Amino acid sequence: METNRLEAFSDGVLAIIITIMVLELKVPHSTELAAIKPLLPILLSYVLSFIYIGIYWNNHHHLLKTVKNTNGAMMWANHHLLFWLSLLPFATAWMGENHFAAMPSAVYGGVLFMSAIAYYILQSLIIVEEGGNQSKLSRAIGTDWKGKLSPVLYVVGIGASFFRPWLAGCIYAFVAMTWMIPDVRIEKVVDESKPAARRAKPSRE
Amino acid sequence: METNRLEAFSDGVLAIIITIMVLELKVPHSTELAAIKPLLPILLSYVLSFIYIGIYWNNHHHLLKTVKNTNGAMMWANHHLLFWLSLLPFATAWMGENHFAAMPSAVYGGVLFMSAIAYYILQSLIIVEEGGNQSKLSRAIGTDWKGKLSPVLYVVGIGASFFRPWLAGCIYAFVAMTWMIPDVRIEKVVDESKPAARRAKPSRE
Amino acid sequence: METNRLEAFSDGVLAIIITIMVLELKVPHSTELAAIKPLLPILLSYVLSFIYIGIYWNNHHHLLKTVKNTNGAMMWANHHLLFWLSLLPFATAWMGENHFAAMPSAVYGGVLFMSAIAYYILQSLIIVEEGGNQSKLSRAIGTDWKGKLSPVLYVVGIGASFFRPWLAGCIYAFVAMTWMIPDVRIEKVVDESKPAARRAKPSRE
Amino acid sequence: METNRLEAFSDGVLAIIITIMVLELKVPHSTELAAIKPLLPILLSYVLSFIYIGIYWNNHHHLLKTVKNTNGAMMWANHHLLFWLSLLPFATAWMGENHFAAMPSAVYGGVLFMSAIAYYILQSLIIVEEGGNQSKLSRAIGTDWKGKLSPVLYVVGIGASFFRPWLAGCIYAFVAMTWMIPDVRIEKVVDESKPAARRAKPSRE
Repeated sequence: METNRLEAFSDGVLAIIITIMVLELKVPHSTELAAIKPLLPILLSYVLSFIYIGIYWNNHHHLLKTVKNTNGAMMWANHHLLFWLSLLPFATAWMGENHFAAMPSAVYGGVLFMSAIAYYILQSLIIVEEGGNQSKLSRAIGTDWKGKLSPVLYVVGIGASFFRPWLAGCIYAFVAMTWMIPDVRIEKVVDESKPAARRAKPSRE
Repeated sequence: METNRLEAFSDGVLAIIITIMVLELKVPHSTELAAIKPLLPILLSYVLSFIYIGIYWNNHHHLLKTVKNTNGAMMWANHHLLFWLSLLPFATAWMGENHFAAMPSAVYGGVLFMSAIAYYILQSLIIVEEGGNQSKLSRAIGTDWKGKLSPVLYVVGIGASFFRPWLAGCIYAFVAMTWMIPDVRIEKVVDESKPAARRAKPSRE
Repeated sequence: METNRLEAFSDGVLAIIITIMVLELKVPHSTELAAIKPLLPILLSYVLSFIYIGIYWNNHHHLLKTVKNTNGAMMWANHHLLFWLSLLPFATAWMGENHFAAMPSAVYGGVLFMSAIAYYILQSLIIVEEGGNQSKLSRAIGTDWKGKLSPVLYVVGIGASFFRPWLAGCIYAFVAMTWMIPDVRIEKVVDESKPAARRAKPSRE
Repeated sequence: METNRLEAFSDGVLAIIITIMVLELKVPHSTELAAIKPLLPILLSYVLSFIYIGIYWNNHHHLLKTVKNTNGAMMWANHHLLFWLSLLPFATAWMGENHFAAMPSAVYGGVLFMSAIAYYILQSLIIVEEGGNQSKLSRAIGTDWKGKLSPVLYVVGIGASFFRPWLAGCIYAFVAMTWMIPDVRIEKVVDESKPAARRAKPSRE
């Protein structure tokens, strides 16, 4: 209940971010198939960013399921995360329109890096609020190797942008792939406490 | 409860998709009625796409009513559907601005085709999760002739685009019409289990 | 519960409609106060349309409070209403940028007229579904003089556009003012059935 | 429950306002780092406005938690607040693109001033509806020094715009900082009445 509006607001912002990125696919004047060809790198960068927003939505979804009460710090940590994600459409368009050139690819990696840091801050604040190391969330994420490895790989990607831009793109895509496997860890621990409630329900009907 | 955020996020994305399409109706500089005339094919393609998003919203609404628990696969199948639908504004604008020319009409049909496939995948995943052939949803959709016929007709429409573009438009409009009849099948089966609860309610007041 | 998603989707579409209208306020290049002057008619038409969307949101809010179950016809009647309202940003921009010229003012009135008809259809469908003349909603709206007078005044406004465009604007503003008095009729009847429930609640705690 | 839709609609509008501001960050054609430099004042004004919308969302969130029943006046006071906030993207872009020039900075302050007044009206209406000086909200905000000081500082900022525009920016940033400390006053009083309910809950499980 407490997190309802935080979720609704985040859903709204993420839904708009994901959708305004498609506005960069400018409608060509020609009706030939060839007219679509220059749009392909833009489409490719759109797909990558769509997947990233999807990943953030999924993880945010799991994360907030573990929260019982919100507080001011949590709300600002959430706004902070949304701020960096809101810069993704800009970075996506710059990178896509310039065929994954060096500087735009590095800036794209920078936005991913800052978003990952912002997510980490939000997650840490929730762990503290919900009971520290003994909290469900803390046990759920365990060593959190994905959360720790991702920023490192983004930095590697940023560095790669200046030598082999296509390699940077590959690294960003690779990190996305590791995250597309949904955060089953949280899913599992959250569900642990539910079966009892579920078994109890039918008896009330 | 479990599906609340998946619905909210999908509602957000669909609401934005439906609304950004109207931005293609560029405000004319002249104030004559004639200034609106070149907008008519754009308006026509907008109406068609508005109806399609309406259909997807309705069916998505019925579909998620049958879901009790979400999982990672379901969330990605949902994102996948939203991805293809998010390309509809682009395809709509390209087709509308070019008076239903061959290639844009074919691309429009392609987006409809991929959206239908994505919907089918989501529906199949939900059936598996909710109990296979014995699930309410499975019984509700029965032979699912509309779900199976639509992709076939989209392919016919794509083919027709290159010979008689106006025919492609008619085929897409025809498919839409068959779907505007809401998915009463699911509605019926879902309602089956409710009357008891409804009768019980007044007694509690 | 049943109407949750219909409300959420409508809220989303209305929120976007109200917000994209502001995009017509193009940022001037000059930094002089005079640079804002040509924006004034656009701002004025924005204020009028903002109020109209506000009115529709309020009335839609009251309307759906009386609904217990949605059905296919209701969903399409709702989409139909959203369709006409989605054309308001276009009509608003055309009218505002042309200083309330004849044809744009008439088209603006036409969109208001069709929205009013669409709202009337939705309201009628809900009355039928919820029990006809004996339904709470039916008693609430009574003779519905505002709902019946408004379309008539819109037609008068459309006619006036071609002789005295400023008069058309005044008529649209006048109708808006009659509606800004919220639909207390529904509010009252809906509340009638609540006190009992409210009194009952504390006893359960 | 009663305020659900008012919150959902406000969340939608605020989410869109926050996101369309980022559209002003126009994608540069060059791929040099220097191409981003002219975007810095736009980014800076975006950060400031992002924080302001975040502040309004947080305070709105706390405010509506204290509301049990909505009425027409409250809904219009809420629309009125959303109207002024919807002008923030325009003011932000004008100020950012002109490197915090005099007139745009003054207009930006004017939008902040009117938003503060609109918020004050909404808050006052809620206090009256929820029981006047004895209401939870009234006790929560106490002397409301921040709510009273902010409009004064905005006026000072507007005046400063014409002599030292950078000073105006500093004043707006300073007010934002005083508000980033979340409205713990309301948080506290609202929570006062909850512990009992919370203790009661487990006993029902």
